Amino acid sequence: CIVKRINKELCKKQQLKGKKVLVTAGPTIEPIDPFRYITNHSSGKMGYAIAEVAASLGANVTLISGPTNLKKPDSVEFVQTLTAVEMFDAIKEHVDSSDAIVMSAAVSDYAPKTYKTNKIKKKDDNITLELKKNPDILKSLDKINPRLVKVGFAAETNHTNQYAKEKLENKKLDLIVANDISNSNSGFKSDNNKITIINHQKTISYDIMSKVECAEIIMEHVIPLLSKTN
Amino acid sequence: CIVKRINKELCKKQQLKGKKVLVTAGPTIEPIDPFRYITNHSSGKMGYAIAEVAASLGANVTLISGPTNLKKPDSVEFVQTLTAVEMFDAIKEHVDSSDAIVMSAAVSDYAPKTYKTNKIKKKDDNITLELKKNPDILKSLDKINPRLVKVGFAAETNHTNQYAKEKLENKKLDLIVANDISNSNSGFKSDNNKITIINHQKTISYDIMSKVECAEIIMEHVIPLLSKTN
Repeated sequence: CIVKRINKELCKKQQLKGKKVLVTAGPTIEPIDPFRYITNHSSGKMGYAIAEVAASLGANVTLISGPTNLKKPDSVEFVQTLTAVEMFDAIKEHVDSSDAIVMSAAVSDYAPKTYKTNKIKKKDDNITLELKKNPDILKSLDKINPRLVKVGFAAETNHTNQYAKEKLENKKLDLIVANDISNSNSGFKSDNNKITIINHQKTISYDIMSKVECAEIIMEHVIPLLSKTN
Repeated sequence: CIVKRINKELCKKQQLKGKKVLVTAGPTIEPIDPFRYITNHSSGKMGYAIAEVAASLGANVTLISGPTNLKKPDSVEFVQTLTAVEMFDAIKEHVDSSDAIVMSAAVSDYAPKTYKTNKIKKKDDNITLELKKNPDILKSLDKINPRLVKVGFAAETNHTNQYAKEKLENKKLDLIVANDISNSNSGFKSDNNKITIINHQKTISYDIMSKVECAEIIMEHVIPLLSKTN
């Protein structure tokens, strides 16, 4: 059991035994041409830690991951994706039979409107790249599986908790994990994170800690939500 | 000596002893906001192999590298860069005292015109990203160091050799290495490459082989160019 911080009893009790937990992690890649793409600084570490902690607690975990440099965890079903659309398709395929989804992936909000099959040549001094909004997977989940426990993430540089609360309401999430990525000692590239957990009743801000410890705290909050679904 | 394919005598003779070789490798990252960036599929493997082969041949090697997942080679001076402009600055700093430059980095042709200090919110259905051409480092090298041997790369999806020849002429290179990235068995992600070496006299196409073997062939072509500079 990798769980260190929270009560070891949770681990021994295998409190998520019989539960199916879907975790998304890492960035997405949105191709511009065969050569270039838009992506983001997500390392996938937070999501991989959540997947491992959930598996340690007895859950049947499926990890849907964008491209990362991390070792695929042993104890989880692993689905590799590239673009936001690929990740959404993988979620749709697995969400029906899931009890909870923890969406820690940094899914690109926008993708190039058109994909150029040949490499764009360096010619004009200025070019314009047209981007279109990616589909909103969160909004469609309720229709597919109304009893699903939904945990979102909000990575922001400013007004972090305010934006996170709005997302919690708008997307009808059960829980949202906010983290301020403007702090260089935590967040994307780091092994540490500084999280705030927000649900419809309260906001709890934690000090900076390892991503594995953050994952334990997050799952500690997911366990009671999951027991409700029984 | 990692050199395997070419005459081991070259290695023993340390034919590049006393020569300073600058090698660029990997992709560049062009930030859109603190979160998102434009990049490309370069793994850096080709450039790292060239740096190692050049060092094995006795050269004093400086490797200027964009972000990669590769182990920093032991026997070279290593400079880490992110954006095209950072890479250009690092080249300018080192090129004065160099005898040759091998530019295998996949430098972004364009960068976002403005960097947004706060994360762009998901709002409009369509957004446009204005891109501006990055400075052309190759064109400025002649002024800084006229005796520099210049080796370029051309990674293309179509008309590869034609574009490569044009680049050889336009940028006043001594040699260009063309590779067709439309072939999934070679190129960016792969450990193999299928290269064509073009100089002002001839075009030599090689079969697919490992990137270390490609690096040996490339340096085999660079050695006579370097002896001329003495």
